[in-house]
Amino acid sequence: MSARQVTAFAPGTVANLGPGFDVLGLAIEGPGDTVVARRAPGGLRIAAITGEGGALSTDVDANTAGVAARQTLRRLGIDPASAGVELEVHKGMPIGSGLGSSAASAAAAAYAVNLLCGGPLRREDLIGPCVEAEAVVSGRHADNVAAALLGGLVLVRSVDPLDVVRLPTPSGLRLVVVTPDFELPTRRARAALPAQVSLKAMVTHAAQLATVVAACYADDPALLTRGLRDPVVTPARAALIPGGEAVMRAAEAAGALGSGICGAGPSLFALCHAAGVARAVEAAMLAAFADAGLTARGCVSPLDCPGVTTR
Amino acid sequence: MSARQVTAFAPGTVANLGPGFDVLGLAIEGPGDTVVARRAPGGLRIAAITGEGGALSTDVDANTAGVAARQTLRRLGIDPASAGVELEVHKGMPIGSGLGSSAASAAAAAYAVNLLCGGPLRREDLIGPCVEAEAVVSGRHADNVAAALLGGLVLVRSVDPLDVVRLPTPSGLRLVVVTPDFELPTRRARAALPAQVSLKAMVTHAAQLATVVAACYADDPALLTRGLRDPVVTPARAALIPGGEAVMRAAEAAGALGSGICGAGPSLFALCHAAGVARAVEAAMLAAFADAGLTARGCVSPLDCPGVTTR
Repeated sequence: MSARQVTAFAPGTVANLGPGFDVLGLAIEGPGDTVVARRAPGGLRIAAITGEGGALSTDVDANTAGVAARQTLRRLGIDPASAGVELEVHKGMPIGSGLGSSAASAAAAAYAVNLLCGGPLRREDLIGPCVEAEAVVSGRHADNVAAALLGGLVLVRSVDPLDVVRLPTPSGLRLVVVTPDFELPTRRARAALPAQVSLKAMVTHAAQLATVVAACYADDPALLTRGLRDPVVTPARAALIPGGEAVMRAAEAAGALGSGICGAGPSLFALCHAAGVARAVEAAMLAAFADAGLTARGCVSPLDCPGVTTR
Repeated sequence: MSARQVTAFAPGTVANLGPGFDVLGLAIEGPGDTVVARRAPGGLRIAAITGEGGALSTDVDANTAGVAARQTLRRLGIDPASAGVELEVHKGMPIGSGLGSSAASAAAAAYAVNLLCGGPLRREDLIGPCVEAEAVVSGRHADNVAAALLGGLVLVRSVDPLDVVRLPTPSGLRLVVVTPDFELPTRRARAALPAQVSLKAMVTHAAQLATVVAACYADDPALLTRGLRDPVVTPARAALIPGGEAVMRAAEAAGALGSGICGAGPSLFALCHAAGVARAVEAAMLAAFADAGLTARGCVSPLDCPGVTTR
């Protein structure tokens, strides 16, 4: 049943989505990472990484593709030291953009390795190995990896124990994602957050997230718009991104239902009614970044994108 | 089109429901308040209050039925000083039990007065007047009044501006509510809450509430069970209720899906799969309160109870 070589592609993902800090993740269309897993003598190794300009180590322990592959092998009951698996990682999106680059590598590697070994594990079973991989580079969170594996929109109720809920997505909407040429280290984005929040902020934040979830099930874009405003995390981080506030205001002025920061940033997102509005919103966001002195690139995605697949 | 007399009954309500502090409210079956509104010379007055042992003032400004009636008249464009409306309030549940006694009086009064005046306002329009009434006795919150008016389960996204979402309820479940003979003033229950919570607690709390909302739409009792555990408010308040922790443990040991405090307490609730389990859980909760030296009374309710109605 096992193949000689498997190629898997995992999509970029937008975590947080306004009030969903650390618990919501959404797969997007376009950017993503490709991992080739093949039979080769020896243990587990990364033969090559392309597309990142030499920024990433091929050390299995220092790379989310390597860690996710090793954890998947263990889940399969295979000793990584004698697994006979070689990986090639092709990065298809910028590192540190807030689009779940490390999660995409992990998801693609876990999926490819599982299939290379006969594929007994389900997508859900691969979340745990990918969380272990994320923990190496950016902390134990599952929002990006769960979306990259399962596709669509996910709610991470708990990482320990792992409990992930797939949510429906409102029909017809489009997500604009704009990535500026600006580096915002995740640790700086984390450091900008308050250690504590008032009880009132806790209640507002929870009500906003609950509204987003209700709007997804009810297929109600107006309700989603009201729920997207994030009282805690987005305001704390927006100032770290040159032009951040202005870009989000420009998106909403151009007709977006709501906007926010993708994961830890610096990419920004805007949710739109339809593809036509989305193109206008994308142009407005790019222009606002240009006003702030940053070049940027945009993409427009539906909300019900597939997770990792073979290529 | 206007009647000479209208009698309205509004149900008791359970606010918070675990992680839904200040934002979730659920109408229950059984306890509730009845308000008679009738034409009478003069302005607006409360002719009588029964069922509360003389504890409440008949001053319109000091009673949620009076304030809600006055605010409803204003919403109708009628000057309360010459409205010609007399109210009788029949309390059908204990004051300070955590079952939304003040909200039930407000909802019944607003509904009766609106119908007495030809009934042009919708139930949703009466939430604002009832929030004004609640503000007089227990702060500006809409969870109890919205559930008492609309029935079923409601999510209060925002009080200012008012934004209330009706949620579906999982089919077949039963809510056990047990009310001990013990007074827990709302201000004491509020004072027990932390002024601030950690960012981590904020995330956990929001994820739990979002899970409850998802479980309601997905009609998934197992998911609801996982979402009901409240990391912040219930632990802070449970110690204020003699036997509180033990009663909740007894409910879960007897088969409840989850348990918690009704509003500010001291009533406790337990969510159950079916009516048979609910009776066993009710007995276990009453026995645990007895062990703590408190007599108590229970009731079992479906989750899709109607809101205020005429009688």
